[in-house]
Amino acid sequence: MKVNGTHYRSLWWDEDKAALQIIDQRWLPHDFRIQQVDTLQDYADAIVEMRVRGAPLIGATAAYGMALAASIDPSNAHLDKAWEFLDKTRPTAINLRWALNRCRAHLVTLPEDQRAAAALALAHEIADEDVEINRNIGLNGLEIIRKIATGKKDGEPVRILTHCNAGWLATVDWGTATSPIYHAHDAGIPIHVWVDETRPRNQGALTAWELGSHGVPHTYITDNAGGHLMQHGLVDMVIVGTDRTTRRGDVCNKIGTYLKALAAQANKVPFYVALPSPTIDWTVSDGVKEIPIEERSQREVTHVQGLTEAGEISQVQVSPHGTPGGNPAFDVTPNHLVTGLITERGVCAATPEGLEGLFPDLSRIAKSA
Amino acid sequence: MKVNGTHYRSLWWDEDKAALQIIDQRWLPHDFRIQQVDTLQDYADAIVEMRVRGAPLIGATAAYGMALAASIDPSNAHLDKAWEFLDKTRPTAINLRWALNRCRAHLVTLPEDQRAAAALALAHEIADEDVEINRNIGLNGLEIIRKIATGKKDGEPVRILTHCNAGWLATVDWGTATSPIYHAHDAGIPIHVWVDETRPRNQGALTAWELGSHGVPHTYITDNAGGHLMQHGLVDMVIVGTDRTTRRGDVCNKIGTYLKALAAQANKVPFYVALPSPTIDWTVSDGVKEIPIEERSQREVTHVQGLTEAGEISQVQVSPHGTPGGNPAFDVTPNHLVTGLITERGVCAATPEGLEGLFPDLSRIAKSA
Repeated sequence: MKVNGTHYRSLWWDEDKAALQIIDQRWLPHDFRIQQVDTLQDYADAIVEMRVRGAPLIGATAAYGMALAASIDPSNAHLDKAWEFLDKTRPTAINLRWALNRCRAHLVTLPEDQRAAAALALAHEIADEDVEINRNIGLNGLEIIRKIATGKKDGEPVRILTHCNAGWLATVDWGTATSPIYHAHDAGIPIHVWVDETRPRNQGALTAWELGSHGVPHTYITDNAGGHLMQHGLVDMVIVGTDRTTRRGDVCNKIGTYLKALAAQANKVPFYVALPSPTIDWTVSDGVKEIPIEERSQREVTHVQGLTEAGEISQVQVSPHGTPGGNPAFDVTPNHLVTGLITERGVCAATPEGLEGLFPDLSRIAKSA
Repeated sequence: MKVNGTHYRSLWWDEDKAALQIIDQRWLPHDFRIQQVDTLQDYADAIVEMRVRGAPLIGATAAYGMALAASIDPSNAHLDKAWEFLDKTRPTAINLRWALNRCRAHLVTLPEDQRAAAALALAHEIADEDVEINRNIGLNGLEIIRKIATGKKDGEPVRILTHCNAGWLATVDWGTATSPIYHAHDAGIPIHVWVDETRPRNQGALTAWELGSHGVPHTYITDNAGGHLMQHGLVDMVIVGTDRTTRRGDVCNKIGTYLKALAAQANKVPFYVALPSPTIDWTVSDGVKEIPIEERSQREVTHVQGLTEAGEISQVQVSPHGTPGGNPAFDVTPNHLVTGLITERGVCAATPEGLEGLFPDLSRIAKSA
């Protein structure tokens, strides 16, 4: 999407320099820094230090890492070594291993002298596929927004609440939850986005930066505010992303999503979840019972990062010294609170029938596995 | 309550020094500083700069301010001047004017040479009354906790979630929502408190400091976490305070309270509100429609205060430069989400009948007004 009028992806290949360029996201939302990734160690650092973040973006980055490895030494032994080196950068990131496996499996079928070019082409393909999936999510979500907009008086914006950053920074472009928003904005539909801060890591600040950079009107709010806004008719719809969707449509997403879904139901606000089909986990049905929730570092809760008056990025401790912090990182929104799932193939009900109807091929593969 | 084993009120009169002592709450939860209040300007500063905060505590502070004024010059003219000077310190604090009116109305009936002593006695009385109300709220709430505790296995704590700081720091002692907790803890009932951070002003840090100082086990969590905890059976009850309760039992409290009430209802967790009867507004029925919600400074949302590594209290900006912040400071929880109201006279349903049953005198006065 756009930053100061120029279109960016969250990573891109510079043909002249023959090297990958990334946005070093550690400095966002306060500073926009582009970094060239040159060595395999650079690739590992970019993932480990969360210069790149978000499952699809990590996968694409790793694919370019394999391309670099193939260009240095295309032997099976070296590709295996690169696979292992990159795989351990974020042990729980499913897309990372998926991308690494896909690259290695393809390359080992080719003669060694074709592997460097093929690896780069495949990395481009993986990045482009992500963009295409998200573009289609956006087009499908756009129709929902368009319908709400037709009920508005001239110039009144469609007011959308979102949680966390399911934005273009977490993918290669468009984002998932943000893709319908960008499509609607680009189509000239007036939009206003309520951006949840999303404690403890404040990914809402990334979403606010994205929206501001692209020119989409928005307001940054605390996670506490959404219920009040919905109660007073100030939210037309909610769109969030998801880390994992069960086959019956339960949605595991950033902590706090569930509270917004409850408020949406209580106030008859449509609650949509945008997802690429790879996040559907066909092996899980009851998300509340079956999905283990990651408990992350206390420090994320007891400390907050931001910009000091002197312009430095720094952390302050908000709770009393020694106070124990609890930090469940995700929660599960049961399917009965979800109005619809916005996927690359269309919008469906958050039910087993809804998901199987859109993805008969994927659900069949899962059943036979 | 206790701080490092010593019992404190949030203010107290030092007989030897013939001066009021307060806890300068601006430095909490990071530093515990006691300050003597000597001049009328000191009193005004203490209220304006929020060294003292919380409606009951502000009222009591103002009463001691009137006592100081009466000791300097007990004339009607001077008392009026002091009334005006103190009244403008926090224009919207109802308890402030209530206390000032009560003091002046009493003093002007007395001969001038008796006013200084009478004013000090009245300030003591106002402070003691607050303590007594909160003590009774605690005793009434204690019975609810005791009942939950009987269903627990030996040693298993009653797990209570609270939002904001309705603690002893906001009153003269005990607090409102915290009073049942302190009573239960002091009675030897194992307790564990989930303390909501309460963005944007993070009053949860004050609650965590209070609980830690008194020795009550607790965990500091983000405002996003409560729904997940309730969904997984990790919360036995919720107790919150209230800024204003309508005659049918709608509860206006710190922003985010409503989201927790929704989660409590969805997960069959009892949701209690602790309140002294002066916070009942008998003139209002439908809290959502009738109570205007204060929109506070954007900066509270875009910036966070905390302790730097160097040990200084400082603010950092969390959102991108120039991002607009929305900051509704309170929300309304409709009465049907409230399990019960814990008052100084007992526990009642959040209904017109419930409140009139406990307070026939007050509701009658309101009706005839």
